[in-house]
Amino acid sequence: MRRGTNLPAVGGFNQTVILDLIRRSGGGLSRVEIAEQTGLSAPTISNVCRRLLEDGLIVETGKRIQGPGKPRVILELDPKSRFALGVHLDPAVVTYAVLDLHGDVVSHMRRRTPSSGRPAKTVTAMASAIDEVVARSGVDRERLLGLGIAAPGPIDAARGIVVDPPLLEGWQNVPLRDALADATGLPVLLEKDVTAAVVAELWRNSEREDFAFFYLGTGIGVGLALGGEVLRGATGNAGEGGTLVVSGDLPPKRRSDMLGHVATPPLLVAQAIDAGVLADRADPVDEMFAELVAAAEAGDTAATAILDRAARLIASSIVSIVNLLDVAEVVFGGPYWDRVADRFLATIGELVNSSAHRVTRHPVTVSTSSIGADVAAAGAACLVLDTSLSPRTSSLLIST
Amino acid sequence: MRRGTNLPAVGGFNQTVILDLIRRSGGGLSRVEIAEQTGLSAPTISNVCRRLLEDGLIVETGKRIQGPGKPRVILELDPKSRFALGVHLDPAVVTYAVLDLHGDVVSHMRRRTPSSGRPAKTVTAMASAIDEVVARSGVDRERLLGLGIAAPGPIDAARGIVVDPPLLEGWQNVPLRDALADATGLPVLLEKDVTAAVVAELWRNSEREDFAFFYLGTGIGVGLALGGEVLRGATGNAGEGGTLVVSGDLPPKRRSDMLGHVATPPLLVAQAIDAGVLADRADPVDEMFAELVAAAEAGDTAATAILDRAARLIASSIVSIVNLLDVAEVVFGGPYWDRVADRFLATIGELVNSSAHRVTRHPVTVSTSSIGADVAAAGAACLVLDTSLSPRTSSLLIST
Repeated sequence: MRRGTNLPAVGGFNQTVILDLIRRSGGGLSRVEIAEQTGLSAPTISNVCRRLLEDGLIVETGKRIQGPGKPRVILELDPKSRFALGVHLDPAVVTYAVLDLHGDVVSHMRRRTPSSGRPAKTVTAMASAIDEVVARSGVDRERLLGLGIAAPGPIDAARGIVVDPPLLEGWQNVPLRDALADATGLPVLLEKDVTAAVVAELWRNSEREDFAFFYLGTGIGVGLALGGEVLRGATGNAGEGGTLVVSGDLPPKRRSDMLGHVATPPLLVAQAIDAGVLADRADPVDEMFAELVAAAEAGDTAATAILDRAARLIASSIVSIVNLLDVAEVVFGGPYWDRVADRFLATIGELVNSSAHRVTRHPVTVSTSSIGADVAAAGAACLVLDTSLSPRTSSLLIST
Repeated sequence: MRRGTNLPAVGGFNQTVILDLIRRSGGGLSRVEIAEQTGLSAPTISNVCRRLLEDGLIVETGKRIQGPGKPRVILELDPKSRFALGVHLDPAVVTYAVLDLHGDVVSHMRRRTPSSGRPAKTVTAMASAIDEVVARSGVDRERLLGLGIAAPGPIDAARGIVVDPPLLEGWQNVPLRDALADATGLPVLLEKDVTAAVVAELWRNSEREDFAFFYLGTGIGVGLALGGEVLRGATGNAGEGGTLVVSGDLPPKRRSDMLGHVATPPLLVAQAIDAGVLADRADPVDEMFAELVAAAEAGDTAATAILDRAARLIASSIVSIVNLLDVAEVVFGGPYWDRVADRFLATIGELVNSSAHRVTRHPVTVSTSSIGADVAAAGAACLVLDTSLSPRTSSLLIST
C-alpha cells in the first residue's frame, strides 16, 4: 500500500538530511550553506539545527568570514556524541568494534569462535565480550545507539534468525538478534555479513552509489549497492557469489565449476597442497593461505599459477555481474583480501576492462575497501548508525 | 547532494499517490477509503481529487452505500483520458503500441525492420508508422503523454543514444531519442528493451516487488525489479543475461559456455540443424524455432533433448541469479517465450526450487508474463505512463 506524506513526516526527514550533510561536509557548514545545498528555508534550518544542538549531535565550532555579511557560525558533527557497536560472527573468529559517528573504530577486539556447536554458550560469551569492549572503549553506555550483528547467511532477516550457515556447526535456526537483545539490553539489528560490508562502504564514502562489494572470506560474497542503497533482496539474503559458474582454466581436482568451489582461500590452499606447494597439514587456513601467497611472492611458479588462475576466475565472474547489473565500480575486501590485494587488484581490473564479453565500454573501477579486514564488524555498527541517522525518503510516508 | 523537502513537493507527491491508488483499485474508491489507505487528511484528499477531476484523469462513477452514513461517491480512473505510445526496435521487427492508462493496448502494429543499415531511413519510417498507429487508434494526439522507445543495448541512457547493438547493422551511436522527438513532436524516452519489459510488469502488477524478468528474444536478457523499482544500473544498461556462464550438459558444437551462446533461439535452431532435426536453410529464426518446438511436441527425441537441455541451462543460470540477488519470483517473456512456455515453465520451476545449490529455502515462483510477446513495446509505453503518473519519493526532494 502506498502512503501519502504530511508535515510531521517531512520534519523528521529534513532533520536527517541536515545532519547527514553536516556529517559528510568534513570541515563543517554554515546555516547559509545548508540552505544552498538542501533548498530548505532559513526558519526550517534554524529549527532543525536548534534541535540537533540540544541533542548534542552537532556543535558550533567557530565563525567563518565569507564575503561582506556578518561572520557565519560553523556547525560540525560531534562524532563522540553517539556510538554504535558491531559484531561479526564468522566460523573462525568473532570480531567486536565500537564506532563513533564518523564511522571510525574507537575500540576493537577479536575472540576465537567457540567450537562447541552450542550457540547458547556462544551467545553468553558474546554478551560478556560486548561488555568488555564497551568498558575498554570508555564509552558511556547511554551513548550507544545499538548493536549490529553481521552473520553468515542464510538468515531470516524479518525474525532475526541465523538459519543454517554452512560452516557453523550446530547453528540451525538460532534467534541471535533477540538473544543478544535480551543479554545486552541494547536494540539489535541482524544482517548478512556481505550486506553489512556494503553498508560500511556507503556510510564512509558518500560518492559511491553503484558498486559491487567482492568479499573474500572463507566463502565468496558479492554485495551490491545500487543508486546509493544497499540491495538486501526479498528475504535479506542477497550476496551469495559462490554459486556463480566460471569457466576457462579450472584447477585439476576441482569440486565443481562454481566460483565458491575453485577460488576461495580454503580451496586455493587445497590446490597448493595438491601441487606440492604446501605440506598437507591441519593448520588454520589463514596461516596456510599466507604461506601460499608468500611462496608466489618468492617466485614459486606453481604458487603463482594457482593465484593467477584464481584472479582470472574472479575477473570472469565480475564480467558477468557487471553485464547483468551495470555496476561501475567493484570494491574488494573481507578477511583474506588484504593478503592478495597487491597481486589481484591490477590483474582483475585489467582483465575486466579488456574483456571481449563486456557489453558496455564504460570503464569499471576496481579498488580495495579502505575499511580493512574488519569491514563486516564495522559494517554491522554502521547499520545501526545508518538506521538511526540517515535520510530515507521512505520515512516521509505517513506510518500506518 | 541530498535535498530537503517542502510543501509544494509534498503536494505533487500526494497527488500521484492518490491517482495511483485509484488506478490500482479496480472498482474505484471513495474519499473515505482513500483517507484510510493513504493516511492523508480529508481536506488534502478533497483538494487533490478536485484537481484530478478537473484534469479529467478521474471521474465520479456513482455512489456506494456503506454503513449508516450518507452514500459515498466513488472515484474511478478514466483510462481513456490519456494515452502513451510505445515502440520496440528489434533487429527483425519494429512493434508499435498505443496504451491507455490501465496499460491496455488499444492499437498495435508491426513492421519489418528495414535492413538498409541506414538508421536515418529507419527513423523516417518509424515516424510515419507512428502517425499511422495513432490514426488507427482514433486517439486525439493532444491526449498522448509521450513516446517510449525500447531498444537493444548497449544504450547511452543519459543522451538517448543507441550505442552499438550487436545485431542491428549500421546502428552505431544513433541519437534515436532526439531524432524521434524531432520527427514526431512528442516527448520521448529511451530505455533498454528488457528494462522496458520490467517497467510493464511493474505497471500492470502492483503486488510484484522483487523479481527477475527472463527475456527470451534473439538474445537473452535478465531485467530486475527490486523493492518495486526497476534496476537500470549505473548507465542504464543492466539486464544482459547472455554472458552468464553455465555448466553441465552443453551442446556439442557450442561457441562458448555462456548462456547467450547455448540457449538462445537462433543457437537452438543451429543445434537442431546439426542434429538433423531441421534442414539447413535460411528461413527466419522464428519460423524454424517454431518447427523445432513442433518436432519436440510430436515426440522427436533429438528435438526434445535440445529443448530440455536449454531449459536445464536456463534453470542453472537462474539459480545463480537467485542466490546473488535473492529474488522471490522469475517472470518469463519476450518474443520467443510463448512458443516454449508450456514446455519450459514447469521444468525450470522444478529445477530451480529443487537445486542443491540454492542458498535459501524460500520458494521461487515462476510465471509467464501476462503481457505477451509485445511486452517490450508495451513496456516502452508504460515508461511514459510511469514517468508521468507514478508516485516517486524522489520527487519529494526540492529540485535544484
